[in-house]
Amino acid sequence: MRLSLTPSTDAADYPFVHRIRTRFSETDAMGIVHHSAYAPYLEESRAALLRHAGRPYDQVREEGVDFSVLELYVRYRQPLRFDELVDVNVVVGAVTRTTFQVAYLLQVDGDTRSTAVTVHGAVDPTGRPTRMPAWLADVARVQTPPA
Amino acid sequence: MRLSLTPSTDAADYPFVHRIRTRFSETDAMGIVHHSAYAPYLEESRAALLRHAGRPYDQVREEGVDFSVLELYVRYRQPLRFDELVDVNVVVGAVTRTTFQVAYLLQVDGDTRSTAVTVHGAVDPTGRPTRMPAWLADVARVQTPPA
Amino acid sequence: MRLSLTPSTDAADYPFVHRIRTRFSETDAMGIVHHSAYAPYLEESRAALLRHAGRPYDQVREEGVDFSVLELYVRYRQPLRFDELVDVNVVVGAVTRTTFQVAYLLQVDGDTRSTAVTVHGAVDPTGRPTRMPAWLADVARVQTPPA
Amino acid sequence: MRLSLTPSTDAADYPFVHRIRTRFSETDAMGIVHHSAYAPYLEESRAALLRHAGRPYDQVREEGVDFSVLELYVRYRQPLRFDELVDVNVVVGAVTRTTFQVAYLLQVDGDTRSTAVTVHGAVDPTGRPTRMPAWLADVARVQTPPA
Repeated sequence: MRLSLTPSTDAADYPFVHRIRTRFSETDAMGIVHHSAYAPYLEESRAALLRHAGRPYDQVREEGVDFSVLELYVRYRQPLRFDELVDVNVVVGAVTRTTFQVAYLLQVDGDTRSTAVTVHGAVDPTGRPTRMPAWLADVARVQTPPA
Repeated sequence: MRLSLTPSTDAADYPFVHRIRTRFSETDAMGIVHHSAYAPYLEESRAALLRHAGRPYDQVREEGVDFSVLELYVRYRQPLRFDELVDVNVVVGAVTRTTFQVAYLLQVDGDTRSTAVTVHGAVDPTGRPTRMPAWLADVARVQTPPA
Repeated sequence: MRLSLTPSTDAADYPFVHRIRTRFSETDAMGIVHHSAYAPYLEESRAALLRHAGRPYDQVREEGVDFSVLELYVRYRQPLRFDELVDVNVVVGAVTRTTFQVAYLLQVDGDTRSTAVTVHGAVDPTGRPTRMPAWLADVARVQTPPA
Repeated sequence: MRLSLTPSTDAADYPFVHRIRTRFSETDAMGIVHHSAYAPYLEESRAALLRHAGRPYDQVREEGVDFSVLELYVRYRQPLRFDELVDVNVVVGAVTRTTFQVAYLLQVDGDTRSTAVTVHGAVDPTGRPTRMPAWLADVARVQTPPA
């Protein structure tokens, strides 16, 4: 298990936030957003962060790098419901030469619903591990909020 | 609209059937299987038919042909619920030089829940239209049940 | 088949538009957005239309009415790709005492990718057909653009 | 983080196995099964285990108990591809008065692709925590393989 980040529940610890509205198709027969719907929320928020950092993911992929998901951890604290506006707070951390981690805090109106961590590796178009782009460390740095 | 097949509600009109158990993740807050979950059921059933006909879809794709979906029509007659075993009855028809259609009848214990039709075109790996493989007509013929 | 609307490919024929960014999780191994991802786009756009019309869908549901999907038709003209911004143009039509239809035009930068129609019925929380709310006709009227 | 189980990569450590064929709709533009598709595989396998143990999940739900997902951890070791048959090995462990955990080993032809753990709590139909059914401990016991 490479996962080492512990996501804060204070939104001030996250330099980037992306807002997502839950879809009815993502709910389940318990009346809440199904737990499998969160991974796409996290992924959409990572893509938004990269776009914000001037590194849109489709361009990254055209340059021959994919960020594969090595590990996923989600803690479901309070359920999400249909039509809620979710603030997905994002911070990049634990950057090594081959991997990086992302921590997430999902809130609705400041109310914590979930925290999560993903671990990523850089792979080439054939799926083989490759060097992490140098700019990734910059993305993590830029995103670090002032103390 | 190329769609021309009218799906029968008599399972005897379908030469092939594939059984799928609904997943909890496919339900929605109305307590039934969400309508977007049906397209993957149809697709899984087409793949099962091709496999049964000796033309597994991953092999078809390796030979440079993809069957793109041009049109999709689903009629939701009675809802599907969690953990139900769905018999997806399948018949190929309306084969032309560039397209073919598939009709579907979804039943649970002989009880009709849904009918559907998909229209497909053959495309090469870059997504451009290509000639329909000759064997596709055979698949349609083989599947025609005896009168 | 109740489906009777023919979706225009002219965005000017649609009084409402809702923008959606495609997700990486919605792509498939052909490198395009999977055809099953469109139904949630249509549904999200219907929800946006109802919200815009002052009838948010969660409030509609609390008042005891669900709009079940009776029929779905999608025509896939040109594929959608990851990270594209899709303008989902929406118009309500063919309102009867028990059903209504919605037509859709999906464009990216004015380029038509798909058209679609859904047919809906009003049901109560137990799934039984119920009277269409009177305001639905108003929503359709309000949405009709000036000739 | 309640997560405490460490999934073994030896299938012999798992008393129950459920086989799933991957769907084309679950693949992504990297040509592999998208990481968000695994949670439904795990859920389907849990449902299969409960059915095997004589406690089908829809019946459990009718008795007023839902097993909410509190935490999810997935480690993606080698990708899954379209049309592969995945053996999802399952073992229940760490049963407390209010929670239990499930460990998973996903293999294709004996080749390890992924390991995972989920943490569950018992909730009533309104989503509030409730007592774990007594038979859950039996399910865990029955499932423990002989040393």
